[in-house]
Amino acid sequence: MSNVLVLGHKNPDTDSICSAISYAYLKNEMGMVAEPIRLGEVNNETLFALKTFEFDQPRLVNQVAKEASQVILVDHNERQQSAEDLNEVQVIEVVDHHRIANFETTDPLFFRAEPVGCTTTIILKLFKENGVEVPMNIAGLMLSAIISDTLLFKSPTCTPQDVEAAKELANIANIDVQKYGLDLLKAGADLSNKTLED
Amino acid sequence: MSNVLVLGHKNPDTDSICSAISYAYLKNEMGMVAEPIRLGEVNNETLFALKTFEFDQPRLVNQVAKEASQVILVDHNERQQSAEDLNEVQVIEVVDHHRIANFETTDPLFFRAEPVGCTTTIILKLFKENGVEVPMNIAGLMLSAIISDTLLFKSPTCTPQDVEAAKELANIANIDVQKYGLDLLKAGADLSNKTLED
Ligand SMILES: [Mn+2]
Ligand SMILES: [Mn+2]
Ligand SMILES: [Mn+2]
Ligand SMILES: [Mn+2]
Repeated sequence: MSNVLVLGHKNPDTDSICSAISYAYLKNEMGMVAEPIRLGEVNNETLFALKTFEFDQPRLVNQVAKEASQVILVDHNERQQSAEDLNEVQVIEVVDHHRIANFETTDPLFFRAEPVGCTTTIILKLFKENGVEVPMNIAGLMLSAIISDTLLFKSPTCTPQDVEAAKELANIANIDVQKYGLDLLKAGADLSNKTLED
Repeated sequence: MSNVLVLGHKNPDTDSICSAISYAYLKNEMGMVAEPIRLGEVNNETLFALKTFEFDQPRLVNQVAKEASQVILVDHNERQQSAEDLNEVQVIEVVDHHRIANFETTDPLFFRAEPVGCTTTIILKLFKENGVEVPMNIAGLMLSAIISDTLLFKSPTCTPQDVEAAKELANIANIDVQKYGLDLLKAGADLSNKTLED
């Protein structure tokens, strides 16, 4: 049996990458063989988060059907934002915080969408519901996603649940949210980084 | 502000009716003003469950937009199975156990689908996650839905989660599952009832 691939959307942002890594971790703890992947280049903000918490980039996969028969979508559900060959595989789960559109399955699946500011706010609930502890470095990634999607709690999409989840994750990761948050958002805005990385 | 209407599918079965009543109860406990409704005639099996646990039939509503601006769908998500004027209202939540198709929103929402045998198996989780106790008579309705959808645990769609949920609900409702289950399924199959009711 091939691995289940866990993927965020095209042009991945910090939530898509960190949700894929953290949800794949949770599914592995629950007994599934799941691998996080990415559909495109990782941006500087995300690189900063990965470096801080000592993660490698997920593997770049362009055609999921060559590698897997089943996938899990995080941080998106619309077909046009997903892998080009999505219709050749079975979507067995979705965890997302966006509107639902252009999504259809032939079989029942686990679909968890909530109107919160970030996917990892929902993933934190799923860790708890399944009695799995969030490791320190995974908590750092999940916190990074919330900071990124809510612009450090300032976006209109930010909810009290996101603020509460960020607090919990910051405690686990032992991170000063305001200080780290500004550093993370600065890393994303800093164009000089781009030159260094390229 | 008008009530939020909670509705199952057209040609309602026991799960659609009992999920609407029990989820509306939960939402009311959580501070929403929600009313369960039905889109069609209630069958004999469902009538037996309602009578046993002393519930009235939910109100029959043909056009939801005349009464509400927001609705919650239970036990279905496909547009053609729902209220005819569904596109004139906002779907704010879905709790379901079917495949996802012909469903689209303009805004993020709470969408909870799981590949289990019955909607009330998921609703029981939502009671627990929100720290709300299931009252005895609501537990009886929720149990009836599981018995109905899984044909007393014999259908191929029945999962260990449905069996476990039924056990918990039977304890709360103080019901002998096998005895009540056979009576319920018999009430649904008994065509002589139909003549009596009509
Ligand atoms: Mn995103
Ligand atoms: Mn996101
Ligand atoms: Mn049904
Ligand atoms: Mn059902």
